[in-house]
Amino acid sequence: MAEKITPRSDDYSQWYLDIVKQAGLAENSDVRGCMVIKPTGYALWEKMQRGLDSLFKATGHVNAYFPLFIPKSFLAKEEEMAEGFAKECAVVTHYRLKAEKGRGLIVDPEAKLEEELIVRPTSETIIWNTYRNWIQSYRDLPLLINQWCNVVRWEMRTRLFLRTAEFLWQEGHTAHATAAEAENETRRMVDVYRQFAEDWMAMPVLVGPKSEGQKFPGAVYTLCIEALMQDGKALQAGTSHFLGQNFSKAFDVTFQNEKGQREFAWATSWGVSTRLIGGLIMTHSDDAGLVLPPRLAPVHVVICPLGKSDVERAPAVAAAQKLADDLRARPRDEFFGYEPIAVKVDLDFDKSPGWRFAEHELRGVPVRVELGPKDMEKRSCVLGRRDRPGKDGKEIGVPLEQAADRIDALLRDIQGNLFAKARTFRDRSTRTAESYDQFKSMIEEPGFIWAHWDGTRETEDRIQQETKATIRCIPFDGSTDAGRCIVTGAPSPRRVVFARAY
Amino acid sequence: MAEKITPRSDDYSQWYLDIVKQAGLAENSDVRGCMVIKPTGYALWEKMQRGLDSLFKATGHVNAYFPLFIPKSFLAKEEEMAEGFAKECAVVTHYRLKAEKGRGLIVDPEAKLEEELIVRPTSETIIWNTYRNWIQSYRDLPLLINQWCNVVRWEMRTRLFLRTAEFLWQEGHTAHATAAEAENETRRMVDVYRQFAEDWMAMPVLVGPKSEGQKFPGAVYTLCIEALMQDGKALQAGTSHFLGQNFSKAFDVTFQNEKGQREFAWATSWGVSTRLIGGLIMTHSDDAGLVLPPRLAPVHVVICPLGKSDVERAPAVAAAQKLADDLRARPRDEFFGYEPIAVKVDLDFDKSPGWRFAEHELRGVPVRVELGPKDMEKRSCVLGRRDRPGKDGKEIGVPLEQAADRIDALLRDIQGNLFAKARTFRDRSTRTAESYDQFKSMIEEPGFIWAHWDGTRETEDRIQQETKATIRCIPFDGSTDAGRCIVTGAPSPRRVVFARAY
Repeated sequence: MAEKITPRSDDYSQWYLDIVKQAGLAENSDVRGCMVIKPTGYALWEKMQRGLDSLFKATGHVNAYFPLFIPKSFLAKEEEMAEGFAKECAVVTHYRLKAEKGRGLIVDPEAKLEEELIVRPTSETIIWNTYRNWIQSYRDLPLLINQWCNVVRWEMRTRLFLRTAEFLWQEGHTAHATAAEAENETRRMVDVYRQFAEDWMAMPVLVGPKSEGQKFPGAVYTLCIEALMQDGKALQAGTSHFLGQNFSKAFDVTFQNEKGQREFAWATSWGVSTRLIGGLIMTHSDDAGLVLPPRLAPVHVVICPLGKSDVERAPAVAAAQKLADDLRARPRDEFFGYEPIAVKVDLDFDKSPGWRFAEHELRGVPVRVELGPKDMEKRSCVLGRRDRPGKDGKEIGVPLEQAADRIDALLRDIQGNLFAKARTFRDRSTRTAESYDQFKSMIEEPGFIWAHWDGTRETEDRIQQETKATIRCIPFDGSTDAGRCIVTGAPSPRRVVFARAY
Repeated sequence: MAEKITPRSDDYSQWYLDIVKQAGLAENSDVRGCMVIKPTGYALWEKMQRGLDSLFKATGHVNAYFPLFIPKSFLAKEEEMAEGFAKECAVVTHYRLKAEKGRGLIVDPEAKLEEELIVRPTSETIIWNTYRNWIQSYRDLPLLINQWCNVVRWEMRTRLFLRTAEFLWQEGHTAHATAAEAENETRRMVDVYRQFAEDWMAMPVLVGPKSEGQKFPGAVYTLCIEALMQDGKALQAGTSHFLGQNFSKAFDVTFQNEKGQREFAWATSWGVSTRLIGGLIMTHSDDAGLVLPPRLAPVHVVICPLGKSDVERAPAVAAAQKLADDLRARPRDEFFGYEPIAVKVDLDFDKSPGWRFAEHELRGVPVRVELGPKDMEKRSCVLGRRDRPGKDGKEIGVPLEQAADRIDALLRDIQGNLFAKARTFRDRSTRTAESYDQFKSMIEEPGFIWAHWDGTRETEDRIQQETKATIRCIPFDGSTDAGRCIVTGAPSPRRVVFARAY
């Protein structure tokens, strides 16, 4: 803990960057816009990958891998996609360097590619070009494929995890024989994202379609999960797109249906990225550092033997090792992704207990076990839960022989508590505006705003220009009372959700 | 099974490509030199990743992620590396396309990068540039980091899995306070590779240094694992490099030692790639298709109920589902990477039993269970093991209540049997040449050849030019009898291993 973390109330942006830096999650690299994901940050991503991957597989998906490079002509084939991504893509033009006297390594002008290659910003084009050969008959459908990979979008203003030129993600690309089946898939996968966000990340989300203005280039419509950060700004955390026949037509992917007729296949795509790590931080963490839901924490429990000398500490060290072994040996279950409980025994006696505790708090370890000389006399320990700092979160005098059971239960309780806390915050930060004036004053306060909207792009754009708020989502489970648009007074079938967003 | 597999004896290369294609492992993409790894191939890679990753973590390593792009000037900083990789790298020169009337999408000439970016062919340079800020004191060492990612080397002649422009791999990059510690790490990681190759892939390997002529550009020396394919050609399956202070000097990475002096850090790097999938195929598979060691098989057991009608099949279908449930519910253990036994119940009654069995053989499922009407009368089943085709590998009349135990034992036995079979083949294909004439005739037969060599690059090059054989490895556990070089007659401290190689 070299430096202090800026309190959230002073400067939320700086607090975020301080957490990312001091908890060792990521840093900017010397390559413009590209981040280095440091070991602790990557461990979080690995946990997320495991959780998501198990949900994808449980819903019948398999993984595959498609090329990093996309021929320029592929991008051009789907018009909206070309418009959406052409402005921000890394272009490979040559395949060789050569050493030249006095100039060092230069790009070899003789090694120019006939057709430039784009580093994938998303893979619909290369994948649908491949599906053309994989799909012949209705028997080949559905094709339920996911890819874990890196993508590049040349962002000008970057922010660690939230917006970077290169990021890691997964992209699902499915093909179906009917529109209805593809639409079901689109809905099913946004629900998988909701489930992951809520059950693993303990991050409550709104679920529903984006407005036409906010959808993915090339999609017929886009469903999303939308979360609320502690500063009251929204974060788009995952999207699932119904692509209709846009890509099958662009890449000529047809199949013979049961009646022997040729039809274009129906498509979906869906993705979440390392951006989720930013969302996780901004949902739970506090001024002392990271707060992690146990299902995603790389270390679940840290055990700290205490004492002034080796002799005084010896019984606590032995008890710590035994407790660690007991925790690691517990039967594996779904809650922990069939991995053992991850335990760290902190033997860093060069540092003061206060320093050590602060370090574990900074890193978001959900449960801390303190084993001091007095605890040892009573064969007991002190448990501290990260989600309730200070005395409130301490259990004193827990008998050592019950500690493993108690810690296990505590981890499950913390998971639920974090979700409940975040949902309470989200619900308290959600209001309804009945007029545009009310909307304009509400939007200066953090949170979601439900309001009637006339469904037009013009009104949406005007609201954005005047208030910096965008339509985040038209939630599936919102009220469907009709009314009148807060801006134009035109009829509105239902309220939609606005917020300022990351 | 649309097409027949070319027998190995007719054309080994074509047999390999037939297996890759027909088992659905990979295919060439429309992007030059880049492959699509299809679901079955990717499932193998995922199994390999899990196995390797658990071994890396058990030896104290953590994962992280570094940028895809490397500034051209970084590559230039380490001379041997620049020479080794400059000739085959993808170069990003622009960051935007634009639409131009009549020409479609073109590279925007105004979006030219000030400094070109190379798509990483390997990441020593970008990682050691990052380590400069991470390493200040001996307390920051060792740094034991691994990265799973894609890399690009612009190969002109490609071959699925074995040599492609883009491939997937892991690259470990460690930093140490002393040369001895870094050398221990280099050795430790090549031993991890040996362990993975032998215990998971059931592929026996030679372990030892490469000759000077075959080492990695930028390394002081390279250790490798070297396997023998069924056609008698060698495959370099993994490498571990001692990099000395080459990269710490090129990127100015120093630390304060315990005496307060500044020193350059010592480095290693080590990697294996999707090439291992090629090695796996060419070690075990046969003319009927893939043969997979159970620890890496995506599906361990396929259960085939048989019978002429729904009524006749009904008891077998019920028994199949019950056996599948029993197998999946067995306690998870290390052998299967703490995952459940993967069982498929084949209910594809539109196809003949022969067709179905051939399909499972093609895909390399280690154990097949047949449940016919006669078996059901006796409440028993037939087990077939993929590693012993035909009657030899069949167990008839296995009582159903013992089937799950028997299958579990069989899977473990197959793993050991495949390794033993491959080692016997390797050992029988290994000879010693006492003269260059003998060497030249031996090299026309498949296999490894032990021979004395004078240690010079000249002799190594000459042997390669005249026989297409290279020094594969100087095995740690080979005989250390001194002798005379088979080519020059100069003194040789010990024999080394030659072969033609992939």
